[in-house]
Amino acid sequence: MKIVCLAGGIGGARFLRGLREAVPEAEVTVIGNTGDDISLFGLRVCPDLDTVMYTLGGGINEEQGWGRSDETFTVKEELAAYGVGPAWFGLGDRDFATHIVRTQMLEAGYKLSAVTEALCDRWNPGVRLIPMTDDQVETHVVIEDEKGRRAVHFQEWWVRLRASVPALSIAAVGAEDAKPAPGVLAAIEAADAVLFPPSNPVVSIGTILAVPGIRDAVAAKTVVGVSPIIGGAPVRGMADACLTAIGVETSARAVAELYGLGLLDGWLVDEADADVRVEGIDVRSRPLLMSDAAATAAIARAAVDLAMELKATEQKRAEDAE
Amino acid sequence: MKIVCLAGGIGGARFLRGLREAVPEAEVTVIGNTGDDISLFGLRVCPDLDTVMYTLGGGINEEQGWGRSDETFTVKEELAAYGVGPAWFGLGDRDFATHIVRTQMLEAGYKLSAVTEALCDRWNPGVRLIPMTDDQVETHVVIEDEKGRRAVHFQEWWVRLRASVPALSIAAVGAEDAKPAPGVLAAIEAADAVLFPPSNPVVSIGTILAVPGIRDAVAAKTVVGVSPIIGGAPVRGMADACLTAIGVETSARAVAELYGLGLLDGWLVDEADADVRVEGIDVRSRPLLMSDAAATAAIARAAVDLAMELKATEQKRAEDAE
Repeated sequence: MKIVCLAGGIGGARFLRGLREAVPEAEVTVIGNTGDDISLFGLRVCPDLDTVMYTLGGGINEEQGWGRSDETFTVKEELAAYGVGPAWFGLGDRDFATHIVRTQMLEAGYKLSAVTEALCDRWNPGVRLIPMTDDQVETHVVIEDEKGRRAVHFQEWWVRLRASVPALSIAAVGAEDAKPAPGVLAAIEAADAVLFPPSNPVVSIGTILAVPGIRDAVAAKTVVGVSPIIGGAPVRGMADACLTAIGVETSARAVAELYGLGLLDGWLVDEADADVRVEGIDVRSRPLLMSDAAATAAIARAAVDLAMELKATEQKRAEDAE
Repeated sequence: MKIVCLAGGIGGARFLRGLREAVPEAEVTVIGNTGDDISLFGLRVCPDLDTVMYTLGGGINEEQGWGRSDETFTVKEELAAYGVGPAWFGLGDRDFATHIVRTQMLEAGYKLSAVTEALCDRWNPGVRLIPMTDDQVETHVVIEDEKGRRAVHFQEWWVRLRASVPALSIAAVGAEDAKPAPGVLAAIEAADAVLFPPSNPVVSIGTILAVPGIRDAVAAKTVVGVSPIIGGAPVRGMADACLTAIGVETSARAVAELYGLGLLDGWLVDEADADVRVEGIDVRSRPLLMSDAAATAAIARAAVDLAMELKATEQKRAEDAE
């Protein structure tokens, strides 16, 4: 079985770990969001790719969900002693090594997809991890504060301001002109199903879908999503702030509608949202809290099962029509 | 009193610390060797500038003479886990921060001299530290081993091979076309004396003097050098391997002759070399082992005193001639 997942950071990575446990025999390709990549201290940082890589490779800081386990912050402290910031982005010493290797390879002319593959040689994540694009796409957020109305990098809004200032709009700058990274469209085409983990629907999955070609390729497949919203609130993170910015209600139903008809075939919602119905989408409810490994694997299993069921139904319908 | 010192790494830095103690009122400008600078992991590393900066700024690892005190090696271990080397160059976490700041500034378009000034803002070395040039000069060493005859970067010969393979020749690649960094010539011109600490006469002071304009500017001043050779052996480091490579005997006398007449006015040699005479150069003997702070300050004091004495003699001679 071949599965493609579009993934953001923490939620996506944890879902993927459950997916590997649930269907260890599946060949999983992960298309990672790069819209929140940022250059810090002259180094290229890819938070979502790294969170997936570290989580599946056994190097993640389990409590915080991002960054390396057993981390130290000597380099960051020294940079601060030089008066060099930003201080608000938590790069640890182990993490720095990843960014140093990545930056050196990028400067040597390798594409991000090749660099990611090289980094994964160490981590053996058990999935094929491909950035959505090798081109630069940067999620910018328009905010208004005492300094006036201005666009800031997503990370500045998300990490520095903790999304406490309302976003007036969110844009994936550069997405229109970006091309899917090598292997992205072929993996989707070859997939038995495409899954959307409970990642941020706006700045993670939405950004991946904004790369021309990816949305159409995904729409041609059986697609099952896992709602990141339970009972009107994001399971973790601040997805509500992103949804509000684009005028979408924070609800399991609204997110399914945001993805749009013709894209999602199945939608897993939490038992708290058992009454959700979306026309044209097969909505199923079940516990969606990824509270431990077993619960997470069960969610992934349910997503795969629903996808297989919907695919079989579709095939039968196609056969009946012949 | 204005003093200019040409300096390499460990020996130069320790002498400078003694100089500051001996003549705290003096305005000292240090012209640092950049010939052994190297790019590692995509970062620009300036070993000699950093050794001077860390030593005078109180951040040096006293035992080894280079690198930071209280150092850890997490980043390096992580790079090795990615299979990224070289492993033979010992960059610690604190040290990495310096190279990250430097590289980021260089990539932003600042010249090395401006970057060095910015780094010194933190370290307050109590001297003005200027790289010999903002242009790229790299000391290459021709060696012959099982891989055949080839040129390697100075650091590969010095650090990786520990100078154990004989150098067939040594060249400061790029020196001919290099220009002295802003402030270098003006500082020499304004100086009451120029001192050569017991730095490596070939790959440190020799390289600085190879930048067009510097040798002539220095020659016009009262110049006193401190011999890095005591009793036919280098006090520390492997200066003998460098001298042999250029066909010069490892002796206090041969080094003075290497600098050449018209450059050195005075030459401090150790008591073990009390019989050394060099035509046209005022040679004085005294204990030259920089065994502790007091001994080092006394050596620096002796160099300054000799320079002042020679300058006074010269001035008197000039007045008498009028």
